[in-house]
Amino acid sequence: MQYPEFGAGLWHFATYLDRYAVDGYGESRTTLEQIALAGTVKDLSVVDVPYPFTPGTTVDEVKDALKAANLRAIGVTPEIYLRRFSKGAFTNPDPKVRAEALDLMNEAGDVVRALGANYVKTWPGQDGWDYPFQVNHHDVWALAKDGLKELAVNNPDLNYVVEYKPREPRVKMLWDSAARSILGIKEMGVDNVGVLLDFGHSLYGGESPADAAQLLIDHGLLWGMDVNDNLRGWDDDLMVGTVHMTEVFEFFYTLKINGWEGVWQLDQFPFREDTVQTAEASIRFLKAIYRALETLDMEGLKEAQAAQDAITAQVLVQDALLSSMRGKDDE
Amino acid sequence: MQYPEFGAGLWHFATYLDRYAVDGYGESRTTLEQIALAGTVKDLSVVDVPYPFTPGTTVDEVKDALKAANLRAIGVTPEIYLRRFSKGAFTNPDPKVRAEALDLMNEAGDVVRALGANYVKTWPGQDGWDYPFQVNHHDVWALAKDGLKELAVNNPDLNYVVEYKPREPRVKMLWDSAARSILGIKEMGVDNVGVLLDFGHSLYGGESPADAAQLLIDHGLLWGMDVNDNLRGWDDDLMVGTVHMTEVFEFFYTLKINGWEGVWQLDQFPFREDTVQTAEASIRFLKAIYRALETLDMEGLKEAQAAQDAITAQVLVQDALLSSMRGKDDE
Amino acid sequence: MQYPEFGAGLWHFATYLDRYAVDGYGESRTTLEQIALAGTVKDLSVVDVPYPFTPGTTVDEVKDALKAANLRAIGVTPEIYLRRFSKGAFTNPDPKVRAEALDLMNEAGDVVRALGANYVKTWPGQDGWDYPFQVNHHDVWALAKDGLKELAVNNPDLNYVVEYKPREPRVKMLWDSAARSILGIKEMGVDNVGVLLDFGHSLYGGESPADAAQLLIDHGLLWGMDVNDNLRGWDDDLMVGTVHMTEVFEFFYTLKINGWEGVWQLDQFPFREDTVQTAEASIRFLKAIYRALETLDMEGLKEAQAAQDAITAQVLVQDALLSSMRGKDDE
Amino acid sequence: MQYPEFGAGLWHFATYLDRYAVDGYGESRTTLEQIALAGTVKDLSVVDVPYPFTPGTTVDEVKDALKAANLRAIGVTPEIYLRRFSKGAFTNPDPKVRAEALDLMNEAGDVVRALGANYVKTWPGQDGWDYPFQVNHHDVWALAKDGLKELAVNNPDLNYVVEYKPREPRVKMLWDSAARSILGIKEMGVDNVGVLLDFGHSLYGGESPADAAQLLIDHGLLWGMDVNDNLRGWDDDLMVGTVHMTEVFEFFYTLKINGWEGVWQLDQFPFREDTVQTAEASIRFLKAIYRALETLDMEGLKEAQAAQDAITAQVLVQDALLSSMRGKDDE
Repeated sequence: MQYPEFGAGLWHFATYLDRYAVDGYGESRTTLEQIALAGTVKDLSVVDVPYPFTPGTTVDEVKDALKAANLRAIGVTPEIYLRRFSKGAFTNPDPKVRAEALDLMNEAGDVVRALGANYVKTWPGQDGWDYPFQVNHHDVWALAKDGLKELAVNNPDLNYVVEYKPREPRVKMLWDSAARSILGIKEMGVDNVGVLLDFGHSLYGGESPADAAQLLIDHGLLWGMDVNDNLRGWDDDLMVGTVHMTEVFEFFYTLKINGWEGVWQLDQFPFREDTVQTAEASIRFLKAIYRALETLDMEGLKEAQAAQDAITAQVLVQDALLSSMRGKDDE
Repeated sequence: MQYPEFGAGLWHFATYLDRYAVDGYGESRTTLEQIALAGTVKDLSVVDVPYPFTPGTTVDEVKDALKAANLRAIGVTPEIYLRRFSKGAFTNPDPKVRAEALDLMNEAGDVVRALGANYVKTWPGQDGWDYPFQVNHHDVWALAKDGLKELAVNNPDLNYVVEYKPREPRVKMLWDSAARSILGIKEMGVDNVGVLLDFGHSLYGGESPADAAQLLIDHGLLWGMDVNDNLRGWDDDLMVGTVHMTEVFEFFYTLKINGWEGVWQLDQFPFREDTVQTAEASIRFLKAIYRALETLDMEGLKEAQAAQDAITAQVLVQDALLSSMRGKDDE
Repeated sequence: MQYPEFGAGLWHFATYLDRYAVDGYGESRTTLEQIALAGTVKDLSVVDVPYPFTPGTTVDEVKDALKAANLRAIGVTPEIYLRRFSKGAFTNPDPKVRAEALDLMNEAGDVVRALGANYVKTWPGQDGWDYPFQVNHHDVWALAKDGLKELAVNNPDLNYVVEYKPREPRVKMLWDSAARSILGIKEMGVDNVGVLLDFGHSLYGGESPADAAQLLIDHGLLWGMDVNDNLRGWDDDLMVGTVHMTEVFEFFYTLKINGWEGVWQLDQFPFREDTVQTAEASIRFLKAIYRALETLDMEGLKEAQAAQDAITAQVLVQDALLSSMRGKDDE
Repeated sequence: MQYPEFGAGLWHFATYLDRYAVDGYGESRTTLEQIALAGTVKDLSVVDVPYPFTPGTTVDEVKDALKAANLRAIGVTPEIYLRRFSKGAFTNPDPKVRAEALDLMNEAGDVVRALGANYVKTWPGQDGWDYPFQVNHHDVWALAKDGLKELAVNNPDLNYVVEYKPREPRVKMLWDSAARSILGIKEMGVDNVGVLLDFGHSLYGGESPADAAQLLIDHGLLWGMDVNDNLRGWDDDLMVGTVHMTEVFEFFYTLKINGWEGVWQLDQFPFREDTVQTAEASIRFLKAIYRALETLDMEGLKEAQAAQDAITAQVLVQDALLSSMRGKDDE
């Protein structure tokens, strides 16, 4: 069977810390070590690379390491959420810090060029607020768009994707939903900014990820995606399919009927699990989803949906999904 | 002190039922009885009138009753969420039912004309879905906009406001947020459709109501609003200010700094409380909010917000809000 | 294959209304009509019967109807959540209403005796509060226990099961979780009160239903259960397995390893769907779950759990669950 | 006015990191620096001290520093949530790690003795699970109790308080609610284990903190508490009163009517704010709450609650709360 390309954020192969386990869930790993680890994952061919790299590591070294690991960089993610950006990157109240954020974005753009990647991934996790009355809502939203627009206009050869998320680390983030992201991009009036949809962000933001994907596709703005899972209350970044099998299936079904053909990426944080095994188990599940899409009665489902016949739709879906591990060893 | 005009959905003076108390929380009241009751509320001058009226009641009777009660109709709300619309009004899979929904909308438009009201309130509570895979997301969103656009184009003398809400009665509603509503209105390309922001819908949908109001104002689309309260997990339609005082205050602060001057409306469902007393206690609280806005250190707050100084902002807010019942009897 | 007994709340075959579709989602059905309808569901053998019946219907008629439909009553559910109990049944501030609640509970007890059912189902959906500061928390919790204890003591031949739920119709319910229910029952010090666990209530209350079931079993108090599904934010009463397949599977796995052998009941509200088809599609899914339990590598899973090895556990679970519709026609 | 004693977790004066701002929101501070900083907060007299201290710091140094800062230790919090405990402390699958957790708890007990503190604060944030099917629910709950019971039995001169929390860092924590905590303590059958209620944990766990406090008081188990605020979806540890003024007020009202007289503690994480100013603004608000309790019409409220009269209750509450900053400078 011809499966799609699978990818992962390179951070999938890092170690993590949080506000309690301040000594980290494991020994830290360098950029090059993470790449090497990613290279050992069966069926993984694409990564999204955070920037800056581990101090001292050059773009050329990263390039070589990717090649050695048989990996391609799909995007570069500038870390505009570290300490100096804790009150915002694009929306920081201090214009000097905003300028630093643009500088970092531009450096990341150069890395995109050097690696031949598709886009600069823009995830402004500190751009928002924590408290009622903390910000002037007009002003921060204007800042959020102004900086990104400036980058887009000044770098017409680059593509930018915004990854929206309802919150965390900021209590409330500005780019928080598919609709708001589309609206913001339209307000900027540029054509080299799109959206990367994270399944888990969409889910815990109260969206149906399938519906969000459709809306983005209808606006020509679904330029990337990644998947994972959670309990709908937080961005748990669990292994995809461990909680919401059916909605993962509906998400990929929506991509398929729209002819969307991109990389199926993972954005997971295996705090306490082996990162390579986590990736492999996740890809194993995604292959089952892919097989289920092959056996799904598309015509029957279309007809059921036209009548909003939820019962028939679910029966067809269960028939495909709950048989998707059958014959898995023949793949 | 010169307070703003206060209003309420006329259903505030109805009685209610739910899926458990199927015999209703009180004896049902006719449209005219509800108007009479609304008329007894101190400081209430505006109502939003559901349509159809109680069978047998004419528009002229409603007009007379409003006059007698010293009330003005700000809007008319067609009940496009009754049984026949249970699988959707604008998005019903049956074209005949969709046509019925438009008919009802048009009748409501005539009532708006007859009563000299401002808008047709459009709340498509059944337009959405319940299950994953139940609908084709492209198609239902297209239907949602097509019907409303047709109405807007055919009735250029009328204004329509969409009241978005994340869910209920449908498990998921299509018009679910401020951003999605703005986007849908832009997609329709008409200029007589705006938005009515319900504070509680915004809150439990994960928005900051102040931020949502600002976004709508920036797009020229905040054409109406109403307030209430809830526990952020459901549209409880509790008395305004009983849970989220500070965020109610921020919401009205945002309206004030934008020069928004409309009716302060209530959308509450006093299932188990006296409806008139509920309205009066709520208006009493809203007056305290209004007084707090008068004493709030606007300059200091502006400065704090420019620096994202949450502590100073909160201290200023508490000084005003927690003194707002002082001297209340001198009003 | 020898499947377990399947059951359903008789209300599964009723029609519904809510605060918006006040004319109801369908023509109302009598108790006897509901029983007849339940009788047509393939593989359904048990029902939970609400009381009072449709006015004019006698217990003998119900008995005969059940027999004719080849159904057995497992429990009787007194409707202690209708209008007169809107401020509470056991906890109503008016002692006269509390006495009426006990009367209704006693009548229901007589019906249990007449029908040879297992228990009086106690679901005090109006016992709680809506607003901060509305009740004295000590007093209402004392009332909640006092009334039920009085019933339990006075009717030693009967069993009572409390069905906990976080909220709805009351904004907050007193019997809201497994732990609180166990605690309350212990405080009462009676041995004929247990718990009925509703999968959806547990899920949207933030519990893991499997964990809640285990806790109840460890206290000897899991006397009944029913399943359905939701989006974790409300008691949507959707068809079981349409959202949370894996957690449904874990729930039944937990029952199996504890040797719990009772009826697999449905508590679903098919507002907009055919009730019989909904029940049949749900039972079809439950059979797949049952088959998955047969093929699950129990030893491997046990070992994985002892090491908290989530990856292996999920792989084993997916192997069983995602093959459970294989050969379904041979059943 | 004679205010209660105010306290704070010493971590209130630390700096923080999270999974994104891995370089931390500020330069790290030693235990002694944190104590010195706490000492500068007006009206703060009590702290809860994490253990281990900064490497090299002795108990005597801590003792001296507390004295110099005019502070008293109310409790000691062993950090049983660092890397080695990432799959659990009491419930770790590895018996060696469980033994290490007990060792750390015992060391903390010695510090309690040395500092003359009231209790060992037990917050097993890693004791739980992340995935469905990851653990055997009976076994982990048994482990959770066994270890704590062993400590309690072996250290009869010490008191232990469990601080429950629904989740984080583990996706699901075992000690997750007031009711479950009481139940677990009863199952252990010891009398030197109680509960510390964190207002924010209670709130985002779906409890009413006032109700949870009452339940704990009724079982004689409310041995400590701390306050903060959040948006009900996560443990944001915001400044108390910035979101849920009314529920904070109800919480302290409940303590007052029960004659509960303990320290009013803060558990806040000022990631991006000045820690001392945050504490002072929070205490300023708590003083307003205290004043509001003095002016509240207790008799009127009692009467309203006896009738579940939410309107009157809210009016009385608003009268007191919304006047609580009046005359604040005369304090």
